[in-house]
Amino acid sequence: MSSSRADDGLFAGVFAHGAVTPLVDDRALLQAMLDFEAALIQALISRGLAPSGASEGLAAMPAADALDLAALGRSTGEQGTPVPGLLAQIRPHLPEVTRAHLHRGATSQDVLDTALMLVAARALAALRGDLDRAAVACAALAAGHGATVMAGRTLLQQALPTSFALKAAGWLDGLTAVRAELAEVRRRGLALQFGGAVGTLAALGTDGLAVAAALGAELELPAPPLPWHTNRTRPARLAAALGTALGAMGKIARDITLLAQTEVAEAAEGGGPGRGGSSTMPHKHNPVGAVAVLACAGQGPGLVAAVLGAMVGEHERAAGAWQAESEPLRALLRLSGSAAASLAQTLEGLEVDPERMRTNLELGGAAMMSESIVTALTPRYGRERAQALVGEATRSDRDLAGALLANPEIAAALGADGIRAALDPAGYLGAAAALVQRALAAHETLERP
Amino acid sequence: MSSSRADDGLFAGVFAHGAVTPLVDDRALLQAMLDFEAALIQALISRGLAPSGASEGLAAMPAADALDLAALGRSTGEQGTPVPGLLAQIRPHLPEVTRAHLHRGATSQDVLDTALMLVAARALAALRGDLDRAAVACAALAAGHGATVMAGRTLLQQALPTSFALKAAGWLDGLTAVRAELAEVRRRGLALQFGGAVGTLAALGTDGLAVAAALGAELELPAPPLPWHTNRTRPARLAAALGTALGAMGKIARDITLLAQTEVAEAAEGGGPGRGGSSTMPHKHNPVGAVAVLACAGQGPGLVAAVLGAMVGEHERAAGAWQAESEPLRALLRLSGSAAASLAQTLEGLEVDPERMRTNLELGGAAMMSESIVTALTPRYGRERAQALVGEATRSDRDLAGALLANPEIAAALGADGIRAALDPAGYLGAAAALVQRALAAHETLERP
Amino acid sequence: MSSSRADDGLFAGVFAHGAVTPLVDDRALLQAMLDFEAALIQALISRGLAPSGASEGLAAMPAADALDLAALGRSTGEQGTPVPGLLAQIRPHLPEVTRAHLHRGATSQDVLDTALMLVAARALAALRGDLDRAAVACAALAAGHGATVMAGRTLLQQALPTSFALKAAGWLDGLTAVRAELAEVRRRGLALQFGGAVGTLAALGTDGLAVAAALGAELELPAPPLPWHTNRTRPARLAAALGTALGAMGKIARDITLLAQTEVAEAAEGGGPGRGGSSTMPHKHNPVGAVAVLACAGQGPGLVAAVLGAMVGEHERAAGAWQAESEPLRALLRLSGSAAASLAQTLEGLEVDPERMRTNLELGGAAMMSESIVTALTPRYGRERAQALVGEATRSDRDLAGALLANPEIAAALGADGIRAALDPAGYLGAAAALVQRALAAHETLERP
Amino acid sequence: MSSSRADDGLFAGVFAHGAVTPLVDDRALLQAMLDFEAALIQALISRGLAPSGASEGLAAMPAADALDLAALGRSTGEQGTPVPGLLAQIRPHLPEVTRAHLHRGATSQDVLDTALMLVAARALAALRGDLDRAAVACAALAAGHGATVMAGRTLLQQALPTSFALKAAGWLDGLTAVRAELAEVRRRGLALQFGGAVGTLAALGTDGLAVAAALGAELELPAPPLPWHTNRTRPARLAAALGTALGAMGKIARDITLLAQTEVAEAAEGGGPGRGGSSTMPHKHNPVGAVAVLACAGQGPGLVAAVLGAMVGEHERAAGAWQAESEPLRALLRLSGSAAASLAQTLEGLEVDPERMRTNLELGGAAMMSESIVTALTPRYGRERAQALVGEATRSDRDLAGALLANPEIAAALGADGIRAALDPAGYLGAAAALVQRALAAHETLERP
Repeated sequence: MSSSRADDGLFAGVFAHGAVTPLVDDRALLQAMLDFEAALIQALISRGLAPSGASEGLAAMPAADALDLAALGRSTGEQGTPVPGLLAQIRPHLPEVTRAHLHRGATSQDVLDTALMLVAARALAALRGDLDRAAVACAALAAGHGATVMAGRTLLQQALPTSFALKAAGWLDGLTAVRAELAEVRRRGLALQFGGAVGTLAALGTDGLAVAAALGAELELPAPPLPWHTNRTRPARLAAALGTALGAMGKIARDITLLAQTEVAEAAEGGGPGRGGSSTMPHKHNPVGAVAVLACAGQGPGLVAAVLGAMVGEHERAAGAWQAESEPLRALLRLSGSAAASLAQTLEGLEVDPERMRTNLELGGAAMMSESIVTALTPRYGRERAQALVGEATRSDRDLAGALLANPEIAAALGADGIRAALDPAGYLGAAAALVQRALAAHETLERP
Repeated sequence: MSSSRADDGLFAGVFAHGAVTPLVDDRALLQAMLDFEAALIQALISRGLAPSGASEGLAAMPAADALDLAALGRSTGEQGTPVPGLLAQIRPHLPEVTRAHLHRGATSQDVLDTALMLVAARALAALRGDLDRAAVACAALAAGHGATVMAGRTLLQQALPTSFALKAAGWLDGLTAVRAELAEVRRRGLALQFGGAVGTLAALGTDGLAVAAALGAELELPAPPLPWHTNRTRPARLAAALGTALGAMGKIARDITLLAQTEVAEAAEGGGPGRGGSSTMPHKHNPVGAVAVLACAGQGPGLVAAVLGAMVGEHERAAGAWQAESEPLRALLRLSGSAAASLAQTLEGLEVDPERMRTNLELGGAAMMSESIVTALTPRYGRERAQALVGEATRSDRDLAGALLANPEIAAALGADGIRAALDPAGYLGAAAALVQRALAAHETLERP
Repeated sequence: MSSSRADDGLFAGVFAHGAVTPLVDDRALLQAMLDFEAALIQALISRGLAPSGASEGLAAMPAADALDLAALGRSTGEQGTPVPGLLAQIRPHLPEVTRAHLHRGATSQDVLDTALMLVAARALAALRGDLDRAAVACAALAAGHGATVMAGRTLLQQALPTSFALKAAGWLDGLTAVRAELAEVRRRGLALQFGGAVGTLAALGTDGLAVAAALGAELELPAPPLPWHTNRTRPARLAAALGTALGAMGKIARDITLLAQTEVAEAAEGGGPGRGGSSTMPHKHNPVGAVAVLACAGQGPGLVAAVLGAMVGEHERAAGAWQAESEPLRALLRLSGSAAASLAQTLEGLEVDPERMRTNLELGGAAMMSESIVTALTPRYGRERAQALVGEATRSDRDLAGALLANPEIAAALGADGIRAALDPAGYLGAAAALVQRALAAHETLERP
Repeated sequence: MSSSRADDGLFAGVFAHGAVTPLVDDRALLQAMLDFEAALIQALISRGLAPSGASEGLAAMPAADALDLAALGRSTGEQGTPVPGLLAQIRPHLPEVTRAHLHRGATSQDVLDTALMLVAARALAALRGDLDRAAVACAALAAGHGATVMAGRTLLQQALPTSFALKAAGWLDGLTAVRAELAEVRRRGLALQFGGAVGTLAALGTDGLAVAAALGAELELPAPPLPWHTNRTRPARLAAALGTALGAMGKIARDITLLAQTEVAEAAEGGGPGRGGSSTMPHKHNPVGAVAVLACAGQGPGLVAAVLGAMVGEHERAAGAWQAESEPLRALLRLSGSAAASLAQTLEGLEVDPERMRTNLELGGAAMMSESIVTALTPRYGRERAQALVGEATRSDRDLAGALLANPEIAAALGADGIRAALDPAGYLGAAAALVQRALAAHETLERP
């Protein structure tokens, strides 16, 4: 359940952080339901189905904050939907001319589905803000650390050198992908739901589709070809996009927690006063922002599964499946927003230690550069022979540089300088710089209006 | 996120219904954290590690309701855990002698894990109440409908006759299983968590285990052999038991929605005034209780998946996985409690229509009884021949009774009376009555203290 | 685990049905891995990094069927990846000039990720075939049943009339959405993965990106801006699209099982000989195709959750998360394909009973038409008064038609003819016909090349 | 889908490793179905319902290997269940007296559910073997490393010292919990399913329960109070226990991958020849066993969710939900078995580096011992004052030992020796040794017959 004032919870700073939370809580959903009812009156007027005087009463419609939420909550249990209770609370405030057209042609599901879409639209805008901040911070890291050589790690083992710029570019690439998909969802994946009890719009006779079009325009939501009360691909796509965003953010946070390990110490979260400190252990500086992101991300897959599971409903309105959809959807919005806010803060304050990155790289030993030597020798000896030569040197007791130089074939091909160059991690970064540029370019393209 | 006042939400009547919700919301968790800190002081005193005067200050400890939840929520974001903020709020209220021992030897995770266990213990007691009510209602249906013959349906096709008593006994059997497992979880699956920062209890020197034992006794939670900060089988088992309970309740609710279909009409939810009615469609009587149960149950599997996913954490306290556990766990408690309350209400008010059950049974036609005829003929002709004879009769143009009588072999074996008896659904219920008795006996055994 | 010959399993007809299964089994994945290695040789040649003679040896590369799968399986366990074992098996077959460039610049993950994308591309093409068949069958039902009036049902209660055409159009709308998304995934969501050990392409010096471009062209997969070894949004989107497709198919199947209920009997699966029959219960005709779809769909959400959970990996190649991705992804492809094949068959053979639909509609009673009467009375009396008038009539002891006529205000407004018209379900279908046309138009637009 | 020969797949060494796989594949399930049919004949004989001669024909019943799996797979698609096809294949092999009683009183679901339980019983026995091996290896590590001091890490930051013995004891504690639960599931959670078409056992007249009891005895499965075709708590509990086992194993594997990091290097997987090596990077030694465990564990939560989702079925046999259960259940068995085999191998060969553990511990710096100093000072100054004194020293520019000694109050309380002792990690392990003994004792209790 979403609380009425979602931003004052015990874990608010972790799971209800940032700008999205107040846009998806119960009051926000309730306000969106009121917005639907008001827009419907306007749409009826615009199609000549209600007198223009009906709109005057709308000013008297109470705002969400003024409603009795506890009474609504009880009524939802009795009716199975909050709409009747909502209508009962607002009706007394409306003049008769407005009341006569209130909710006309609509069914509960129209109100709730559309309200959820409005909530999503508003939340996605706010989420975009924090995702943008995170992406801009990634882009700055990628742009600024082209010369920061570090170990690339596979299966948590040092494998080959890479640059911190490329690592940040990889993070950025993930964020670019999810921002593009969320933008697409916002542009095309959200829609008005308006079909009446079984999707025929029968109560509006021949005017149903025209009212739907007007209603969509009022609410700035596309009017879809068909009511989608039985076609839950829209909520599914929204959930999947949010779950994917949580995954992409979680990946960045996972990397940060690993870089911040005491034994690795290549990055740390910038702490404001007290941030991430430990009262009993003054030496500790916890990566609290990254941990918060991961704590949100860990809840994503199960919530997406719940929304997908709710697709399989009965006939013209499911008996239970549909009703199970809105809680996990709003949780996904809230957790995505919260994770994005924490991630942006973490990336903006990230303290990177290029010196330590280079030092750690030496842990892998010169042996890590053996692929580089093979590559340097391949033009002259072919790859198989080159691998054999380097294999021999690797197995020698000497340090790799010495062993390479002691091998006459290798020495002949590369010389001492060539060996030194081939052993320099900074010289074995392949396409890293170009890839970073590509990531930045894709990021900038997305930013452009 | 759990709200501070979880019972006043928009969907409170569906997802935050019944007695469990207020026991798992933020205030309840906070109170359990305070209970931990108070009990720790007592435990230290009992082991001679704090002066007895330290306990006097406990009276001054504020209750959860008196704390500033918004400030706590912010602090949780900064620290990654609510404990430092909590200690900061209560410290000023305590006399120095108490303050000196506050939180001694404990780490944040000790407080949160134990508080969650306390919350679970309290919530499971309340959940049990509503599950018991639901079971008692099932038992009454099973006991009272032994003579209510109805169609048993497989793949939603009428298959063979059964009794409504046996159907209710099957429901009861599921509830008996989940009540037994939840009782076992409550008795043995919950435990104190107390290990200090990394699980060694080092800050208490050689007194750690004794303090742990005293603390468990204070809180009425078993002190486990080892701190379980890294062994998340306890939360996993709790989550699984709740997810299973939601599934068992969902199964009953699914059956009720199907029995309540307009075209089946064998059962209906008893409506109080307005309950399940539709304002625009006065003929409708919605099975709102069963739908609420299904709406809760639909969220179960994904939440269990989240708790299981959180088991794989890093070292002595996970960076993200552990933190992702408490929200889905509390949601599972809340949804189980809500579903149980709705289910109990639904079953207690269930209106069963034995007449309609019998009428519907005739839809399957006499053909549905062919297995019964085969069974009756088998002693004389063997099963294969019996099947062949009945197969012929089934394919005849005549009604089955006529076709059977017209077949000399069948007529010789059974006579008109035997055919009539074999075509009577009430005579083909096999072990139904005995099975119902078994379900009732198992239910009663569980009830006994 | 996918079997080597996935099409001969015990449940093949349910979970490994249709054209997709053989395209995603182990042999198919292995072949795609071989295709990658061959294309890489070609790409190296095209960039002048290998002599053109290297391509001649490719003819000697064994096909997947010729490899020792058991040995590969063991080697995968020892190496953690099947690639070294694969290379070891094919190397002896290649001439030295080819061998010298085999796998050059690539890492295991490049081979596996790209192979999975190739498998997905091939499987999506086959899946599209069966989804198209299902959609065409839906479209035919929608086009042919405009005059088939039936009960629209919400919460499994008859609510208002609709047409079977509109129901089928709703199904079609879901299929149109998932087909569009899957086409988009196939066009833009799949991509070559090629980055070398840590994503820098270092082993290819300055030629890495050019080789990547050539390799993508060879394999007909887009070369993405960046290697995506650490950005798992592509697998996530693929999984989500398949999970959504399973949900949309499951919804249709759920409706069919409900329509096929003995007590509803509005539709039945067309049975070939023996199809869906029950040996012991000759009267039964099980909706086996729809059940198969649901059995596939039920596994979707959990599999999507697994792929999303695998997004959060460590550094340049995850230690466990990445490795957990390919099994659920292939299962999603197989189950989607299997569901689509079953669904197409089911929809193509669906037997619809318009007569029974109309008969069932009468069960709801004239009361179901009360909204229609209200709508008819509203122009004269306003909606509130109209509702009050109809409410009175509904509560009368008379049949509704009689009660309406007996009410002087209603009789004055509508007359006997008007009352009769307003009580005719076929006259209260609102925008159904127009909506059906829209669904058909969207379907046809999608079909157009 | 499970393959017919599951042990020869491309990823067999990762996902189909160890002794469980061949016990859960299609042939194994098929054999269990045959075992059911044979045992049913015996049970009928034992109750006098079939002549004793019927058992002679059982010798002629073909084994699973002799059946045509491809034909069965197709028939499953047509019938929705493999049982009719199975019966059709075995009937011709049986003498008439046996054939006449084949499958008598049973329905397809009886055969499949019971076969799945038999498969589970056999698989759990094999799984236990590998879990035992893993636990014994953990116990040896715990018993042998009491003096191995290492950093305890929270949120991936060094926090306080612990011992490797206690870390291994924590792993063991998790394994003890899951082994106990799996043993309980095996003892009490599995059961015969036997109810006939709708659970009444009607085809056996008054003999149904007696036949059920005899059948359970034949198959060594408990005969439950009621058939559980509609009560899916048994599969749910089995799935949950397996998912929990995967989580507990994944936790250990996660720790091992972290300890094996190049920069941490406190543990490494023992490599047989070639195991975990990298052909292109000879310096790498990948933790392939731990990665395999994590790759299995990552699939657990989604599969458990699928089984829980399948609990909510329709009436006496679900239309889709039940059918979705067996694939994820068998996958859970296979993945648990595979993970256990990999984990046992990994733990048995684990190479621990106590020297490096101690060296890494110094990275945290003396500051990590500040809690120890506070603890030492507390008896004299009280905890608040002690914290203040240590806080001052921590903030000084000197090394901590020097700063502590320079503080007259601290020096007075502890002296140089006391300071040195309080800074020794080995002296600040609290209850570690006692906790290790508890974990070993619980392990040994479980082992005892």
